[in-house]
Amino acid sequence: MSIVTEIGSRAKKAAFELYTLETRMKNDVLDSISKELLANVPEILAANQIDVNSSRQAGISDDLLDRLMLNEKRICQAVEGIKKVIDLDDPVGEMIEGRRLHNGLMLNKVRVPIGVIGIIYEARPNVTVDASVLCLKSGNAIILRGSSNILNTNKVIVNVMRSAIAGVGLNPDAIILLDSPDRALVNELMQCREYLDLLIPRGGNDLIRNVVNNSTVPVIETGIGNCHVYVDEYADLEMALKILVNAKVSRCSVCNAAESLLVHRRVADEFMPSAIDALIRNGVEIFGCERTAVYDKRVKPASEDDYYREYLALKISVMVVDSLKAAIEHINKYGSHHSDAIVTGNYQNACEFTMKVDSAAVYVNASTRFTDGFEYGFGAEIGISTQRLHARGPMGLKELTTTKFVLYGDGQVRE
Amino acid sequence: MSIVTEIGSRAKKAAFELYTLETRMKNDVLDSISKELLANVPEILAANQIDVNSSRQAGISDDLLDRLMLNEKRICQAVEGIKKVIDLDDPVGEMIEGRRLHNGLMLNKVRVPIGVIGIIYEARPNVTVDASVLCLKSGNAIILRGSSNILNTNKVIVNVMRSAIAGVGLNPDAIILLDSPDRALVNELMQCREYLDLLIPRGGNDLIRNVVNNSTVPVIETGIGNCHVYVDEYADLEMALKILVNAKVSRCSVCNAAESLLVHRRVADEFMPSAIDALIRNGVEIFGCERTAVYDKRVKPASEDDYYREYLALKISVMVVDSLKAAIEHINKYGSHHSDAIVTGNYQNACEFTMKVDSAAVYVNASTRFTDGFEYGFGAEIGISTQRLHARGPMGLKELTTTKFVLYGDGQVRE
Repeated sequence: MSIVTEIGSRAKKAAFELYTLETRMKNDVLDSISKELLANVPEILAANQIDVNSSRQAGISDDLLDRLMLNEKRICQAVEGIKKVIDLDDPVGEMIEGRRLHNGLMLNKVRVPIGVIGIIYEARPNVTVDASVLCLKSGNAIILRGSSNILNTNKVIVNVMRSAIAGVGLNPDAIILLDSPDRALVNELMQCREYLDLLIPRGGNDLIRNVVNNSTVPVIETGIGNCHVYVDEYADLEMALKILVNAKVSRCSVCNAAESLLVHRRVADEFMPSAIDALIRNGVEIFGCERTAVYDKRVKPASEDDYYREYLALKISVMVVDSLKAAIEHINKYGSHHSDAIVTGNYQNACEFTMKVDSAAVYVNASTRFTDGFEYGFGAEIGISTQRLHARGPMGLKELTTTKFVLYGDGQVRE
Repeated sequence: MSIVTEIGSRAKKAAFELYTLETRMKNDVLDSISKELLANVPEILAANQIDVNSSRQAGISDDLLDRLMLNEKRICQAVEGIKKVIDLDDPVGEMIEGRRLHNGLMLNKVRVPIGVIGIIYEARPNVTVDASVLCLKSGNAIILRGSSNILNTNKVIVNVMRSAIAGVGLNPDAIILLDSPDRALVNELMQCREYLDLLIPRGGNDLIRNVVNNSTVPVIETGIGNCHVYVDEYADLEMALKILVNAKVSRCSVCNAAESLLVHRRVADEFMPSAIDALIRNGVEIFGCERTAVYDKRVKPASEDDYYREYLALKISVMVVDSLKAAIEHINKYGSHHSDAIVTGNYQNACEFTMKVDSAAVYVNASTRFTDGFEYGFGAEIGISTQRLHARGPMGLKELTTTKFVLYGDGQVRE
């Protein structure tokens, strides 16, 4: 039996035990995990130091290094996150709908766990904790496959979590780390339909494309965000500038950051000079259409590719558009259907934009940066789905469940 | 441009027009389609006769021949089905949840169409009409790829529907038939992520496996049903017999028919002889375990494979089990997670069975044959999902939608 099959079958067994586990017990496990993480801070930091050192030697960027680095404060933040998940309602067992059918059968539709969930992700140790905790609370077993850059850190964290689970008398295989750096195993994981019910890739475009194209296990795509701010002819331009700067520069490396600015031609003369100036003062490089370039010689020419691009950096594409319709068509064509905003004071234009822009989150007079499970009040998120099936937008605990129909009869047979 | 790309891009354009189409207009289209179908009965029947003749010459089974054959009554039934869909609530625009967030942003989660849906299906002309109508009502464009055995029938039906759509001034590309028998095009369709948002295979196991394994477009699996009836030690045996016979023989070629009978050992002596007798009187061939075989020499020995099998025929596998627990484990292991029933008068056993059997539909004291969109009150169904993501069990109009978040602000920016 291959490692993946062996891990998968153990996870499936654990998932079956979690399937009917009471909320109280799940919260006990989470509580125990948070205590054990705090009790093992030195071990976790020591392992993390090994990963930090080897990653630094390998020459990874400061930004990535910062993401994979742990300290006591960050572990405490992860533990705070667990406490919040404990406080969240258990989605499992929720009765979503129900009715008595014409023949007297009582039909109930209830939420149940999905089963075994695989996560393939980059070098972010907080994902190891967050994803495990969300899967546990929603009654799912999880198979983790993090970047090999944090393999030592993940080994220690997962061991601590598994001990905590075993400590309350449950099956530790609820959380399993695929702890080999062998990439062939990732391909096996993507084919392991027998045991895996869902695979969530978290990371860059290449990782996600690879999983989508090669997985026979159902996939939920997350996180590609080519988000737009459209400044309508009826925009409050002061508000527009505030929203634009926030959407672009408050945190440019995340998926809900703006990557493109569209400006209605009627307000371009008034808005563009101050917008370009504010962006450049914030260190943003601007790639604009010809009609943008006339306002400032620091604007570089945009190629068509620029409008498709998710920069995840202090860069933005800019275009002057002739109408609301052109803006909507541009967004639906070039965007990634993640988060897009209109700034307008016009009621009809707001309605048309929200109706016709086909994105997971559509904003009127607010920054795209709000697309986030915490901001939406879901308490936590396992990712932001940019696909259309099962879940769209920030995914919380509910999105980690499926449903089943339960029908109570007294001898009904069909016709 | 390949045929598939060309069809896909046309469907995408039509989908965008459907995306915001008012219910009233969608119902007008459906009404027009039903009138045009009735006005073109002779043409449809003539085309169908060609398909019937060539299929008969090709020597297909009587059962399949019956499925692909149309007559005036069957067309009228399809039209009756359209009228029912007109009467159903439009799922698009439903506000599923909403709240004011801490920062004043008004968050709404609303249902929107999925986009372009592909259906690959066997030689059943009624699916051509049903699937098209359900997709239209839910605001989706559809690409149909039916069995080449009904290509002539489908060409005429789709032309009639397209004319009806054009007749009310809408884009006929809302319904497109992939009208080439070339199988390579099916493979292209499965890779056409640029334009297709969802692919639903309807048909036998081989078709579904092929689509699941080779499609990069998201797939919803439908219809494999290895359904069980478990007769508990506390069953009303008269009721159990009635349910068993109904589940097995009322229509054995459908996915919600029972394929396996489990009987608790404590009631086997009393139940088995009459159950075996009733099944055999109804023409059912029985494949039983050794403990079943002792009751009747007409019972053939079951191999392990028999317990995995979806016969779709007058055949059943039978096993005597030692406990409720064994029954549940058997169902979760050998079943297809479609529809499974317990017959019992015991409250705890009913609870345990419904909690632990991990199937799309779980029945207490009722026939598995009820798993059906019409029976559940959804008005219509596009298929029965046997997967866990997006939709599980009978899929109606709601399951042909996705959601988007719309957020109304007055200048909110993030921290």
